[in-house]
Amino acid sequence: MRAAVLRDVRQIVLEERPVPVPGPHEVLVRIRSVGVCGSDTHYYEHGRIGDFVVTAPLVLGHEASGEVVAVGADATRGLLGKRVSLEPGVPDLTCEQCRAGRYNLCPNVRFFATPPVDGAFCEYVTILEGFAYPVPDSIDDDAAALLEPLSVGIWACRKGGVSAGSRVLVTGAGPIGLIAAEVARAFGAAEVVVTDVNAHRLALATEVGATGTIDVGHRGISDSGFEPDVLLECSGNAGATVAGIRSVTRGGHVVLVGMGGGPLPLPVSDIQTRELRLTGTFRYANTWPSAIALTSSGAVDLNRLVTGRHTLDEVEDALTAPARDERAVKVVVRPWVD
Amino acid sequence: MRAAVLRDVRQIVLEERPVPVPGPHEVLVRIRSVGVCGSDTHYYEHGRIGDFVVTAPLVLGHEASGEVVAVGADATRGLLGKRVSLEPGVPDLTCEQCRAGRYNLCPNVRFFATPPVDGAFCEYVTILEGFAYPVPDSIDDDAAALLEPLSVGIWACRKGGVSAGSRVLVTGAGPIGLIAAEVARAFGAAEVVVTDVNAHRLALATEVGATGTIDVGHRGISDSGFEPDVLLECSGNAGATVAGIRSVTRGGHVVLVGMGGGPLPLPVSDIQTRELRLTGTFRYANTWPSAIALTSSGAVDLNRLVTGRHTLDEVEDALTAPARDERAVKVVVRPWVD
Amino acid sequence: MRAAVLRDVRQIVLEERPVPVPGPHEVLVRIRSVGVCGSDTHYYEHGRIGDFVVTAPLVLGHEASGEVVAVGADATRGLLGKRVSLEPGVPDLTCEQCRAGRYNLCPNVRFFATPPVDGAFCEYVTILEGFAYPVPDSIDDDAAALLEPLSVGIWACRKGGVSAGSRVLVTGAGPIGLIAAEVARAFGAAEVVVTDVNAHRLALATEVGATGTIDVGHRGISDSGFEPDVLLECSGNAGATVAGIRSVTRGGHVVLVGMGGGPLPLPVSDIQTRELRLTGTFRYANTWPSAIALTSSGAVDLNRLVTGRHTLDEVEDALTAPARDERAVKVVVRPWVD
Amino acid sequence: MRAAVLRDVRQIVLEERPVPVPGPHEVLVRIRSVGVCGSDTHYYEHGRIGDFVVTAPLVLGHEASGEVVAVGADATRGLLGKRVSLEPGVPDLTCEQCRAGRYNLCPNVRFFATPPVDGAFCEYVTILEGFAYPVPDSIDDDAAALLEPLSVGIWACRKGGVSAGSRVLVTGAGPIGLIAAEVARAFGAAEVVVTDVNAHRLALATEVGATGTIDVGHRGISDSGFEPDVLLECSGNAGATVAGIRSVTRGGHVVLVGMGGGPLPLPVSDIQTRELRLTGTFRYANTWPSAIALTSSGAVDLNRLVTGRHTLDEVEDALTAPARDERAVKVVVRPWVD
Repeated sequence: MRAAVLRDVRQIVLEERPVPVPGPHEVLVRIRSVGVCGSDTHYYEHGRIGDFVVTAPLVLGHEASGEVVAVGADATRGLLGKRVSLEPGVPDLTCEQCRAGRYNLCPNVRFFATPPVDGAFCEYVTILEGFAYPVPDSIDDDAAALLEPLSVGIWACRKGGVSAGSRVLVTGAGPIGLIAAEVARAFGAAEVVVTDVNAHRLALATEVGATGTIDVGHRGISDSGFEPDVLLECSGNAGATVAGIRSVTRGGHVVLVGMGGGPLPLPVSDIQTRELRLTGTFRYANTWPSAIALTSSGAVDLNRLVTGRHTLDEVEDALTAPARDERAVKVVVRPWVD
Repeated sequence: MRAAVLRDVRQIVLEERPVPVPGPHEVLVRIRSVGVCGSDTHYYEHGRIGDFVVTAPLVLGHEASGEVVAVGADATRGLLGKRVSLEPGVPDLTCEQCRAGRYNLCPNVRFFATPPVDGAFCEYVTILEGFAYPVPDSIDDDAAALLEPLSVGIWACRKGGVSAGSRVLVTGAGPIGLIAAEVARAFGAAEVVVTDVNAHRLALATEVGATGTIDVGHRGISDSGFEPDVLLECSGNAGATVAGIRSVTRGGHVVLVGMGGGPLPLPVSDIQTRELRLTGTFRYANTWPSAIALTSSGAVDLNRLVTGRHTLDEVEDALTAPARDERAVKVVVRPWVD
Repeated sequence: MRAAVLRDVRQIVLEERPVPVPGPHEVLVRIRSVGVCGSDTHYYEHGRIGDFVVTAPLVLGHEASGEVVAVGADATRGLLGKRVSLEPGVPDLTCEQCRAGRYNLCPNVRFFATPPVDGAFCEYVTILEGFAYPVPDSIDDDAAALLEPLSVGIWACRKGGVSAGSRVLVTGAGPIGLIAAEVARAFGAAEVVVTDVNAHRLALATEVGATGTIDVGHRGISDSGFEPDVLLECSGNAGATVAGIRSVTRGGHVVLVGMGGGPLPLPVSDIQTRELRLTGTFRYANTWPSAIALTSSGAVDLNRLVTGRHTLDEVEDALTAPARDERAVKVVVRPWVD
Repeated sequence: MRAAVLRDVRQIVLEERPVPVPGPHEVLVRIRSVGVCGSDTHYYEHGRIGDFVVTAPLVLGHEASGEVVAVGADATRGLLGKRVSLEPGVPDLTCEQCRAGRYNLCPNVRFFATPPVDGAFCEYVTILEGFAYPVPDSIDDDAAALLEPLSVGIWACRKGGVSAGSRVLVTGAGPIGLIAAEVARAFGAAEVVVTDVNAHRLALATEVGATGTIDVGHRGISDSGFEPDVLLECSGNAGATVAGIRSVTRGGHVVLVGMGGGPLPLPVSDIQTRELRLTGTFRYANTWPSAIALTSSGAVDLNRLVTGRHTLDEVEDALTAPARDERAVKVVVRPWVD
């Protein structure tokens, strides 16, 4: 099969590799669509993300959908021939974190496109059958791939306790911020205000359901008078994070989704005197059923985020699209389309 | 002022009473619309509900909206002249339950139209100012009154942990069941199945957003194959309750909203082996802000439930409307309309 | 190896069986002590518990400790030679319930001594290595076996939200009730009142830390004036359950631990008007680390519950001890002691 | 009556003031014991704590007990003549935070010894009757006063989800750290490790129940190998906070109790990749019943923290005791003892 392999910083090579063989409880998936995530682009450009360093050739891509074309000897879920969305992190299932339901915190997780585990910019992958979710016809291949970033948004809303009537601030209108805003509305949030400095993205935010936007290049959050009870921080920007936290109401929630650089000078006295509940998200757990339900019911529309489609030959174009075009939101790679 | 007073079983008399004077922290509200609740009808027909016995003349009606026409000396919320929705139970605010945020369980609560506290089938009432919520123009007088039953539905969904992607069974398509179904959708529920034996009401259920209905006069819940993770029991019917509980998935929630008669033969082994989490609701707490948000955003449409409007002279007609017309859902009384 | 096999109602036969071979991720455990549970006795006397029917020869016993004497090819936890306590239910780890952290509700769990899975009244068993927990020297073999019923008590206290200052009612002073009472104290409960009709057991309750007892043969719970915020129902008795629920304070918890017969006439209006939170327990999840901590620190003393020790030849004596001696609390079987 | 009034930085003057008159729902309390808190000392030495600035003469002291010597016209709790412990912050009870059970976050709270509200270094105070808790004989006057700092510890443990089997790290062995450690044990924590640089305080930590101590002047937390699931940060020290957070296990809790200076460089990536749940505490809510229960049962011993007793004449000595004597832990003022 063909695989797009990161061999060095800014160097993707299309290689021939053997089609993988599914283990007893695994399925073989013919990849149909793979979304490009900012982390893919970051590995491509820097060869690392924090402590995760690419030291050997690596296949990127972890937002994937496909079709099950073979199953292992002990597979029991009847997935052969089914169109599936992949949950790209397979934990050990037996550690203390897994058994407590926090399998995203499993220290032994094997996650697609995270060194040394290969991802999905290729023609076939294998995966534990329980992590390949059949999707209905109402969810097409691209949307099925994008259930992964949708899961990030769902997880953020769960961690933030978003519910009917919530007032939510989303800082940062990148793909994750946009999805988080749309998900917050699907969770019943009454007000969802999105901040960014990119007018195009703020317009998109309104399109996906934000009830308000703030162009923080021109106006501060504090000037807006908006007092959210939940902050979903999706920018990774220190200033946005601090200003966002300052705006949250007493007893409110702060969820740090965006990845920034080093330690942040968090306003501890705000956290204390208002007893804010702050946490960060690391991937997600138990989100696919909800992601499928929200997408198939139309509560969330993932397809409108897709701004470009590429072949396996064009993975580098796909990885650099956001840098080249400020209107690019979510680009997908389709290995079997020429 | 005029007040419709229950003087005996099935006997309402329109009387002249002095306009009440607001206490220091109270407001005087000119009533605009009052919804008729099944409990009002029950008091009218039986003179009691369980341990609550009408022993003296009583004004019924607890789903009320109006306009603030006077305020007490120490009122600080600036409500004079505002259209408001009333939260009809005023707790003592100082007991252990109140301080823990469970003010609906306050043993000293004074609740409209519950002996010996008069309700709102009259021209004016007084209430502690914090229990009169200003409503925007997008919520008209009838909808403002119906924020009370909406609160019942919100409370049920909160107790049941309804969230995005939930599969919810609502047993009973009376006003509360219909509202609970609509609210469950507003909370992001992916599937909401409603049961009843009244085809008209099941059609209404679909109209308010139910994704499925079961006419349990013809088919059992167990035959439907639906396996909810939340049961909102709104019928008060023993058979529906037991069948509903039996259908709930492992680890699911059961919320008993409907009031039935005596003890129910609950299937304890189902509760144990599936570790169901069962509770009942008693009124609500901290729901009005969400109720206003859901109504003003259009997530919930209360006006379509209103099937009849009556004057203060016609309170008995209003109280007996559901018995006379199976298409009656929610009837309101408007004291100032002739 | 020798195994005590239930071949028919009230018929245990000591048989020779091959020593089991551990699978790749399993360990082979030489059994040292096995507690007798009421469910073992119930299978022995009736051949069934509810829907679980013994249709083939079955080895009973699921409260077990031992020593790891061999490990499978892929075992990684370094258990060889270690003294271990066994968690007797091994779930599939991949289903929705397992991944959500509720692995006790796994529909595919294989649980010791539950048809058709054999238990531990024998010389050796195999188990997935993650379900064999090494214990420190401060926990002897009998106590290590009794971490299983201790887990039942821990799970009950967690479900009931027992915390520092809680007022807890435990109905039923059998082994589980006694352990639940002791655990409630270890969770910081300020008051723990235990009910039973057996004066000896009530004395034991005081010994394990109950702050009060009620002999319900002579006095009702309601007469005691005790108003718990948590009920841990450990009797399985309908009357005790109903009286217990009636006594619980507003907003309190009810946990049904004891297994009764058919449906119970639960006082629904009490559940509603006080918004009680009722659930049942089915085994436990994620309890062993806490069980080990509470036992090794001395917060809980399991050894004082042991009232008899038997050899593998005497399993029938062990199973019938409670029926023969009202002072019997917990009897253990030690397969390797003659 | 006599009152010790802070008239300027480091200047306390004993003045004659009229005995206050209780309002309708208030009680008049003859003060028996008042603990000195670090915040009192801070106001004394700096005239401010952050945004709270002393601009007029102020009576300090907010950890108080006494005897009810008069009650207002509408008082109903029967407190006359009772020995009571005072909860020193009286909220408005009607705002959104109060009704949600978070009355400690009430924006209108009136808190003893916080400008412009006077405290308890005087002979009499008035307080809303529901905030004066009767105490049993087993709790003496000093312990009754110290239910206030005990409440801080209880609140911290609740926020941190401390439960049976928890592994807790307490950074800082001042009075609050020591109490937090003792409370964590009372909540069932299996391991409680306390850090400080003061050997005397670490010895005290062991005395109150810590299972381990780390003198962080000589050894880092990370060197200890201890991996807590809860951090109760009680030092207000930036280095301790960061090192403490780094040590917390996946999914663990961080509670910031200690008050520091400005923003802290919190290790955001640790919070994200381990999904730590971080919050701060601001006073407490609904803690007095538990505080009374833990003290009267002997689970917590407050008296051993008392290292000095002073008269009203000696308030300045009391306020400066910790600075003068490193062995001072908790000093109390007794207005009626000469």
